[in-house]
Amino acid sequence: MNRYDNRLRVLMEEYEMLISRENEKILPGNGIFERYKYPILTAAHTPLEWRYDFNPETNPYFMERFGINAVFNAGAIKFNEKYLVMGRVEGYDRKSFFAIAESPNGIDRFHFWEYPVQLPDLYPEETNVYDMRLTAHEDGWIYGIFCSESLDPNAALGDLSSAVAKAGIIRTKDLKNWERLPNLISQSQQRNVVLHPEFVNGKYALYTRPQDNFINAGNGGGIGWALIDDITHAEIKEETIINHRHYHTIKEVKNGEGPHPIKTSQGWLHLAHGVRACAAGLRYVLYLYMTSLEDPTKIIAEPGGFLLAPMGEERIGDVSNVLFSNGWIADENGTVYIYYASSDTRMHVATSTIDRLIDYCFHTPADGFRSAASVKNIYKSVEANKLILAEQFHF
Amino acid sequence: MNRYDNRLRVLMEEYEMLISRENEKILPGNGIFERYKYPILTAAHTPLEWRYDFNPETNPYFMERFGINAVFNAGAIKFNEKYLVMGRVEGYDRKSFFAIAESPNGIDRFHFWEYPVQLPDLYPEETNVYDMRLTAHEDGWIYGIFCSESLDPNAALGDLSSAVAKAGIIRTKDLKNWERLPNLISQSQQRNVVLHPEFVNGKYALYTRPQDNFINAGNGGGIGWALIDDITHAEIKEETIINHRHYHTIKEVKNGEGPHPIKTSQGWLHLAHGVRACAAGLRYVLYLYMTSLEDPTKIIAEPGGFLLAPMGEERIGDVSNVLFSNGWIADENGTVYIYYASSDTRMHVATSTIDRLIDYCFHTPADGFRSAASVKNIYKSVEANKLILAEQFHF
Repeated sequence: MNRYDNRLRVLMEEYEMLISRENEKILPGNGIFERYKYPILTAAHTPLEWRYDFNPETNPYFMERFGINAVFNAGAIKFNEKYLVMGRVEGYDRKSFFAIAESPNGIDRFHFWEYPVQLPDLYPEETNVYDMRLTAHEDGWIYGIFCSESLDPNAALGDLSSAVAKAGIIRTKDLKNWERLPNLISQSQQRNVVLHPEFVNGKYALYTRPQDNFINAGNGGGIGWALIDDITHAEIKEETIINHRHYHTIKEVKNGEGPHPIKTSQGWLHLAHGVRACAAGLRYVLYLYMTSLEDPTKIIAEPGGFLLAPMGEERIGDVSNVLFSNGWIADENGTVYIYYASSDTRMHVATSTIDRLIDYCFHTPADGFRSAASVKNIYKSVEANKLILAEQFHF
Repeated sequence: MNRYDNRLRVLMEEYEMLISRENEKILPGNGIFERYKYPILTAAHTPLEWRYDFNPETNPYFMERFGINAVFNAGAIKFNEKYLVMGRVEGYDRKSFFAIAESPNGIDRFHFWEYPVQLPDLYPEETNVYDMRLTAHEDGWIYGIFCSESLDPNAALGDLSSAVAKAGIIRTKDLKNWERLPNLISQSQQRNVVLHPEFVNGKYALYTRPQDNFINAGNGGGIGWALIDDITHAEIKEETIINHRHYHTIKEVKNGEGPHPIKTSQGWLHLAHGVRACAAGLRYVLYLYMTSLEDPTKIIAEPGGFLLAPMGEERIGDVSNVLFSNGWIADENGTVYIYYASSDTRMHVATSTIDRLIDYCFHTPADGFRSAASVKNIYKSVEANKLILAEQFHF
């Protein structure tokens, strides 16, 4: 009994220290954004009540009874002056589910609500759910679109890995009571589906990522765009690729929309992920692009290369070499909180401002698609800097 | 302006500290070579002038404008009493190019020249260039052979990953002005092509690494050897494998020549890489072998196993589990500087001597190809050591 109490006390103290720890900005950074010293959420941030049976009769060794493996790929929204992220929480058994954690300032002291989200259970074949995108739509609802995955009914005998990915849709007014709408109907598999926050031509608009058959049909793949007549029976009838994959770029193999774009005076600001293959598997990085306010399918800026790639401890995790983001928050004062997961294991935050990210989008050289173009860029830069250093700083 | 100046000052101070940092040998090591505490080159070693626009008018936030992601796989040469490495510098956009950095002593204080190398641009389809091998040939030129990569024109629709790798050839007298010769003509794709420093039977001699069809043709693959009639119109007409791949060795999947071999009194000393597959992708390690002075295609020594494999922080990077070398320098006093990259991210140095590396090649047991052989080796070693400890050291 003594030993039991002691473990409980130690665990509770450690847990309180963890969830009340203050974060620290890492400076000087690259001027575009700042990273932070600590992850904002890890498996250890999930409540002890979820993982332990506190009854000494039934859990005499005070053992973990339901292990949580990782917290990653979180949607995000500001609600009632709190910064909320809706994490993908994964158990030791590889099944993931959603849970909301809130912070007073967006960068630290995230703590989970008492219970994880109980999704209405419409599809008995649905095995796993993940990667929520939250959108406060101008229709007055807050929507969540996520991936709903099942075993492929047409998989070959003995093939237990082939899955079907569909887009699940939920909505709420209070982030507590969720209404589930029918899954998105689409001819291809769909991951990374995101709801645009405004009506376009009076319709709901989705960012999509058609896969497999769609790619083989010759479209080339990329981030798609589709208008939806009725969100309560959502169906993709026509899909246009608005952001393409390209040979020998950071998005050679795959790309997908992150959270929904932020509306700015200069255009819609988008955060996306790009994937390439290497000898150690796939490498996921994050990039920005902008589309026109008048025509959200038209790209008006796309800086070359990645905004964020795995660094330091971010490089390693359950699935190494991965950064992924499906949540960010733009504050009224222009601060942008980019919530990103590293290596399918933990959540981080990076901060910037609308102004800096727009400046980045319009003034970073576009991808030149060739080594020769990179050298030309650097030549221009060195020559211009020699002048400016001589004139302005008297070097 | 104040904020701008402050960031500029901090970045410049950090940069100066980094490039003037002294390196430290890690002792006692294994006797064969010594590693060093710090990498010799990283992305942070590239000049701020390449990455930043110093003009406060056009870069008001003092942001990075052209991000450098990694510096790795460098060729090397001693020139005018300086130790030069010609790095593969990769931008955030995945395109790489070449840039020379020099050091007064070969182990620290490497600093990049003002501009990267501007290759003559002969091939409009050339997308990426990498992995330079430098050879001061007895014809009086310094040659560089590198990989010139383009999108495979025969790739399936929507396949943006299939590339064609050719060997590009340049030459110079001063490492500043480069003449580009036509790409090597070869029936198979070629990476890891290296120019032997001497004429053989009056011809130029190349180490090659024929791939794909060549392997399927039943040859088995490995490090090849080809004599070239005219280096200004280089064409492989006949290719012999001189160092074979082998089942369940460090070079089961692939192997390739590193930098050109060093001429010693006992034979040509070669540094190469070997590749095997595992659940986490490919694993690249470095090994040595020696060939005959009379017949450079004849192996006279090949110690079993690797010389260098990823250790500590070397294990992790953009492409983890990789050591690669395409540059080393043999000094007049017999010191050998082995320049190697870890995990496609950064450059390191290890030092040894010609005498130690030759001793290593001739006296390390050859690969026994079986577990039982390893145990026999150790039995012999323990028995011999018991005698010697008793007799010589009176243990």
